[in-house]
Amino acid sequence: MVEDFRHVTLDIPQLRAPDDILIRNRLLSLDPYMRWRMNDSKSYAKPVGIGEVMVGATVGEVVCSNDPLFAPGDVVLAGGGWQDYAIVKPDGVRKIDPQLTSLSAYLGVLGSPGFTAYAGLMKIGAPQPGETVVVGAATGPVGSLVIQLAKMAGCRAVAIAGGVEKCRLAVERFGADAAVDHRDPDLANKLAAACPNGIDVYFENIGGRVLDAVIPLLNSFARIPVCGLISQYNGLEQRDDAISLAQLMQDALVKRLLVRGFIVTDYNAYRDEFFASVAPKVTSGAIVSLEDIVDGLANAPSAFIGLLNGKNIGKLIIRVD
Amino acid sequence: MVEDFRHVTLDIPQLRAPDDILIRNRLLSLDPYMRWRMNDSKSYAKPVGIGEVMVGATVGEVVCSNDPLFAPGDVVLAGGGWQDYAIVKPDGVRKIDPQLTSLSAYLGVLGSPGFTAYAGLMKIGAPQPGETVVVGAATGPVGSLVIQLAKMAGCRAVAIAGGVEKCRLAVERFGADAAVDHRDPDLANKLAAACPNGIDVYFENIGGRVLDAVIPLLNSFARIPVCGLISQYNGLEQRDDAISLAQLMQDALVKRLLVRGFIVTDYNAYRDEFFASVAPKVTSGAIVSLEDIVDGLANAPSAFIGLLNGKNIGKLIIRVD
Repeated sequence: MVEDFRHVTLDIPQLRAPDDILIRNRLLSLDPYMRWRMNDSKSYAKPVGIGEVMVGATVGEVVCSNDPLFAPGDVVLAGGGWQDYAIVKPDGVRKIDPQLTSLSAYLGVLGSPGFTAYAGLMKIGAPQPGETVVVGAATGPVGSLVIQLAKMAGCRAVAIAGGVEKCRLAVERFGADAAVDHRDPDLANKLAAACPNGIDVYFENIGGRVLDAVIPLLNSFARIPVCGLISQYNGLEQRDDAISLAQLMQDALVKRLLVRGFIVTDYNAYRDEFFASVAPKVTSGAIVSLEDIVDGLANAPSAFIGLLNGKNIGKLIIRVD
Repeated sequence: MVEDFRHVTLDIPQLRAPDDILIRNRLLSLDPYMRWRMNDSKSYAKPVGIGEVMVGATVGEVVCSNDPLFAPGDVVLAGGGWQDYAIVKPDGVRKIDPQLTSLSAYLGVLGSPGFTAYAGLMKIGAPQPGETVVVGAATGPVGSLVIQLAKMAGCRAVAIAGGVEKCRLAVERFGADAAVDHRDPDLANKLAAACPNGIDVYFENIGGRVLDAVIPLLNSFARIPVCGLISQYNGLEQRDDAISLAQLMQDALVKRLLVRGFIVTDYNAYRDEFFASVAPKVTSGAIVSLEDIVDGLANAPSAFIGLLNGKNIGKLIIRVD
């Protein structure tokens, strides 16, 4: 709830350590993983404590720096969090080229969401021409690039999205061959109809009943990069008809499935390859992206809750100033 | 049940097709996968129909051959099935060297069970020195080689086996660092105690409650080659406390797990590598194996049922003649 967030006004922080950098945040990325960081559970990163500043990727400007590699005015990508000013360390800061494309692209199609799509699809999914790739949250910043990369790999791309409007966008804007509404009570049959040759790659970012609909359609040697589980972040749903772990293991054996969880930072070695491959296509317009830019840090909590509920369309970004 | 099998006497079959080979079976391998082939369900191989001869790997002698590459007296590995004589095709027959080691080893540690252990552990599990490898059915022909290969890779090897005697064997004969009885009501805690540094590779051949005990102990980047699910072959057990698919997916994401089903024939490209690596160690005694040789084809059904119930120890082989 919005009331779970507190907006406080403090003095601009001062440089203290010899490697401190003060940045002014311009753009803040809002992403589903943040919901998980609010849970007090063991994960790949420590939770954000009550009273701490919410984490988040930002594009900003260096105000002053004790590190000689950064100068006032440098435009940088950093983990500046949900605030106007942040003290950050050099190893988490990268200078970016404001001429190449819009600054917001560095938080979306050329940022962590885009790289997540690239790493999961290309390095785990390894799509082959003629195969069928299915991706959920298909109009989001990850899913929409998965669709476009799958098409470029010569695959049939099937989108799963919430509602008629997003399904239409997935097809018309991002080039999906078919789109299925995950809210459709007949999801399983609709997905089967959209995948006449089965599913070879399921880029998993939803979980729950979407996964249940996917599993029976998987082909032998299908790959499931597990990128996220947005349907589960608010807690595990209990359903009597859910596919069991025993059934998945049996399918994994019979069909020689690959299930592999990943975090984008595991693939940092491929970040340059990603940028070299995708950035020119973004600049040329061969790869498109949708952004949803909301003004004002004070609107971040309500925008974030809308994101978790599937309310927004495109990469959600807060214009901080 | 033994009554589900029928033992019939027929004339010795005749060569008909220009590539037919008649072999006399000497040794027949009995393996858990055969139970699954008796189910009328979709799998990687077609089920054995009612009234058909049960399939199975055999060591035998060529009686006569229409294929000029095979001559009477050749000792061969073939899929001769549960019978005294079989007509087979050249692509399923390999000559073997009866001087190198015992003939029965070609059905066990140097045959498909041994190659299954090698492919799953080395090509999917990819064990690193200092890691912990857990394997079930640990005194069986697959598990016992997994233990020994894990030790050779510098890992801690933890065996799961049924009963005190098999646990003792796993440690004393095969060199496991610890062994846990899967029948122990306190399995989860016993396994945790045996794996003080968590689990990096779980060679899955059991499923069910053993898998449930393993999952909470998995380390980040753990690998699960799925080789078999012997606890599930007679049907899926329903347990209220079973770990759900949703929970596994969450762990897969948080811990970046790899789950990969495999069938040994998928890795045929590595068969020569396996033989070159393992056969000299079998000959020298550095790798040991246990065999349980039962006389008489008529005893195959009862021996096979005992195998599924964990009654026998070591690679189960029927001496056909």
